[in-house]
Amino acid sequence: MLPLGGLGEIGKNMTVIEFDGRIIIVDTGLMFPTAEMHGIDLVLPDFSYLRGRADDIEAIVLTHGHEDHVGALPYVLREIGPPPVIYGGLLTIGMVRSKLDEHKLADSAPLEELPPGQKVQRGPFEIELVHLAHSIPDMRGVLLKTEAGSVLMTGDYKFDQTPVDGRPADVSRLAEIGKEGLLLLCGDSTNADRPGVAPSESSVGPALLQAFAQCEGRIIVTSFASNIHRVQQVIDAAVALDRKVALVGRSMRKNFNIASNLGMANAPQGLFIQPREIENFPDDKVVVISTGSQGEPLSALRRMANNDHRDVQLHSGDTVVFSATPVPGNERAVNETIDRIYEIGATVITAKDAPIHASGHGWQEELKLMINLTKPRYVMPVHGDFKRLRLHAELAAAVGIEQANIFQGRNGLPLEVNGEGAGFGEDIHAGVMYVDGVNIGDPDDAALRDRRDISADGIFIVVATISSDDGTVVADPEVIFRGVAFLEEANDLVEDVSDLVEDSLEEAAKAGNREVDLIQEDLHDAIGKFVFQRLRRKPMILPVVVEI
Amino acid sequence: MLPLGGLGEIGKNMTVIEFDGRIIIVDTGLMFPTAEMHGIDLVLPDFSYLRGRADDIEAIVLTHGHEDHVGALPYVLREIGPPPVIYGGLLTIGMVRSKLDEHKLADSAPLEELPPGQKVQRGPFEIELVHLAHSIPDMRGVLLKTEAGSVLMTGDYKFDQTPVDGRPADVSRLAEIGKEGLLLLCGDSTNADRPGVAPSESSVGPALLQAFAQCEGRIIVTSFASNIHRVQQVIDAAVALDRKVALVGRSMRKNFNIASNLGMANAPQGLFIQPREIENFPDDKVVVISTGSQGEPLSALRRMANNDHRDVQLHSGDTVVFSATPVPGNERAVNETIDRIYEIGATVITAKDAPIHASGHGWQEELKLMINLTKPRYVMPVHGDFKRLRLHAELAAAVGIEQANIFQGRNGLPLEVNGEGAGFGEDIHAGVMYVDGVNIGDPDDAALRDRRDISADGIFIVVATISSDDGTVVADPEVIFRGVAFLEEANDLVEDVSDLVEDSLEEAAKAGNREVDLIQEDLHDAIGKFVFQRLRRKPMILPVVVEI
Repeated sequence: MLPLGGLGEIGKNMTVIEFDGRIIIVDTGLMFPTAEMHGIDLVLPDFSYLRGRADDIEAIVLTHGHEDHVGALPYVLREIGPPPVIYGGLLTIGMVRSKLDEHKLADSAPLEELPPGQKVQRGPFEIELVHLAHSIPDMRGVLLKTEAGSVLMTGDYKFDQTPVDGRPADVSRLAEIGKEGLLLLCGDSTNADRPGVAPSESSVGPALLQAFAQCEGRIIVTSFASNIHRVQQVIDAAVALDRKVALVGRSMRKNFNIASNLGMANAPQGLFIQPREIENFPDDKVVVISTGSQGEPLSALRRMANNDHRDVQLHSGDTVVFSATPVPGNERAVNETIDRIYEIGATVITAKDAPIHASGHGWQEELKLMINLTKPRYVMPVHGDFKRLRLHAELAAAVGIEQANIFQGRNGLPLEVNGEGAGFGEDIHAGVMYVDGVNIGDPDDAALRDRRDISADGIFIVVATISSDDGTVVADPEVIFRGVAFLEEANDLVEDVSDLVEDSLEEAAKAGNREVDLIQEDLHDAIGKFVFQRLRRKPMILPVVVEI
Repeated sequence: MLPLGGLGEIGKNMTVIEFDGRIIIVDTGLMFPTAEMHGIDLVLPDFSYLRGRADDIEAIVLTHGHEDHVGALPYVLREIGPPPVIYGGLLTIGMVRSKLDEHKLADSAPLEELPPGQKVQRGPFEIELVHLAHSIPDMRGVLLKTEAGSVLMTGDYKFDQTPVDGRPADVSRLAEIGKEGLLLLCGDSTNADRPGVAPSESSVGPALLQAFAQCEGRIIVTSFASNIHRVQQVIDAAVALDRKVALVGRSMRKNFNIASNLGMANAPQGLFIQPREIENFPDDKVVVISTGSQGEPLSALRRMANNDHRDVQLHSGDTVVFSATPVPGNERAVNETIDRIYEIGATVITAKDAPIHASGHGWQEELKLMINLTKPRYVMPVHGDFKRLRLHAELAAAVGIEQANIFQGRNGLPLEVNGEGAGFGEDIHAGVMYVDGVNIGDPDDAALRDRRDISADGIFIVVATISSDDGTVVADPEVIFRGVAFLEEANDLVEDVSDLVEDSLEEAAKAGNREVDLIQEDLHDAIGKFVFQRLRRKPMILPVVVEI
């Protein structure tokens, strides 16, 4: 098995399971870029290992519908081509179909629901999905059996004994898998640092109701749009308090519709109002359910916090309820959003103030239970940064897995396992890929490096026109700069650079230097040196010499 | 009093206290930029209110030596000019002198220690410093008395009953101030969200010793370099365990030297070793004290985590102890650093694992105690984001300050107070200033906007040379791009743009359009449209038309 993403990071989970030259891909997730990735839209696992191997792929299997498990699928389909089949749970397939529709890829994608417990043979692999609980319905672990033995990829899970839909993780099947003999377990490490057991999703509903009951004005709840059960519990609390509900944010409406059409979510007739109708109802009769729990720049809640939302203007008296915690890395964006809400005068309730959020990832005792149930010979923690992978490895050791049978891997490092033994193979150095507009590429691409450089210090462009006869200057040099800091003395500097260019060109002409490339290089160095002396900055210098 | 920074944010504290046209400035702090501020070095309070008012300034008073209270001083001195005097505690003055030395400003800065309790008259102001405890020695509240009444700016404080230097906050003087009658209290809000009382700094020493005692290999401790007492406690623990100590990182060495010269820190002869000597000692005989507790990109610890430090190569067996918590906004940088350390195989201990850090800012009960001691008529919370200012205001109300006498302000909004009443004056709209290389400027500066634009989508430069006689094209257009994403089809596109330019110029020539500005504008629009159609991106388009 070859992890292409999700190890040493939180996000972009993707794993290749290979046997006898045939391939199953489990999950195709993405990550969102950080501010340092100037202008990058999305971060994908580097799946170049699959290039030219489209014919070897038996299936793509998706554990659940979260972006960090399915978000890269359109790009995999486009770059590698569609596999014979794409399996997943019912909601997963529904959400992915809607996503592929937007990419105009749905028609060519062989999406197929594989019910849990049903076994299907694809090449040398027997594939079976195992129902588990998570913060989205229809989460499925993936069990792959070959002649060499079986592998269980857990996906994201918790052992919620009282999930909202009444369908806890299928512990009986997990126990059977253990009895049948599991060769390798690859388990979710997200909460490997939290002792104990995660609270049940169904504990959130009463806490929400209690919090709502104390609000005198409008209630704006933000949560992950894909957390259907959470949204359902917010709806139930609103119904109990005789408040209308408005869904705000595109993905909130979309996901609720998909789940509702599949019978996984429901609301009484007449409960929903349109966002533009909110103002028509008294403040204490409204609950708004909004996207933006992670402080995403363009989300509905962030726009409300910036006084920039068409339908919802926050004001004192409103209570904004964060029924979610920041994914690592989003702390600042979330805190900024919260503080803008305080600035407006509204009140904020977070999971620190009341138990209005439950993680979808099992805590330490659950990770141990998974190992004890499935009794794997080998364990390789996945889905976590290096710290959590390490802690998960320590949990495995604590429940009796031999140290030599626990593997702490990294993206691009294949683990080779069979009945005789297990060990790391040769590192294929899988990095990341960036989506930038319509293109996919390498982060070392010159474009990004240039953007980084220019974004630090700006750019100087100098256009010089010389005669192709004798190299003499035939028009005044044009000096243009963009993004160069606070140039109060700009005119001076522009004139000085212009003089410098003319001098430099004259010298070149006298010296008989007529190679445009060389002249440009000389200009580059001379201007760079001069600008650095004056500004203590190193903008990009771009000399253009035109010969006529 | 006019807050120029520190309200609605954590950082860049600066307040102007004005009476009768005369001015005292309390603190001149800075903030560090976020990744969104492309290439900006520092963020300063917008002190343009002081421009042209140098003659009105009686003194600058500094509460303590932290960057968010003194870091903007060099820029204030340079832009506004030196005041008649700059007061502060002994260590504060020592640290500021060293900082001004680096800016070659120390000679012109009238730095003067003002011992706590000593009263000095400057114009209409009687100035007195009140000793308080914080995470740096010599922290002083500032009491300013005028005919209108007195104002206490607390600076950053906690009521540590057992500080490491045995000098707790001067509660007696605070009680006296209350008895004398305090008009306005402006208090630190940093921990207004934490119930109870902050643990004492001296509780950290035993916890560090206990944690160190369990380490079998090297110990690398990171902490704020200015937290002299913390560094002292690490040194004491190292001595107790018979380990040598290496100070790594420029500011760590500098601050320890300053404190040591002032008799505020000490270490036994022979304890210190040079960073390059670390490898000469057994792993279990070394403690490294390093900068980088906030994950700062160029800090010593971050470089160690990236396998890029000259003297310290981390390896399995090392324990890195974070004796600090992330300042809000630094979570991601700190977590990235921690995870790189895990990746290397070393172990990490943070304040979540053991009580090895104590905040320097008082918690809720301490904020209440400050109000109860000083019995102010008016309260205005400062030093905090809007959430914490609100919570601090609620604490004031809880201890009996009338709601109408509690002011929740913002930067640039002056509070006018006298014996008869208090109220906000006219907003002067103080924003921020950016330091970019050697220059200071406005964040709306076109340079930064340009950098932001180019950093998102890159830049296209088109140079066209036309005849000044008839506008005909006299040389092939040059098309250059930088930072445009993954241009696999670059050559095509360049040729197409080149053709487009020629066509466009020919049309202009035919139409008799000879205004260079207009031609450039037409080119800009045509190229922009064309590039967007092809790339779905909007790079900056920069046409340069040269007439010869």
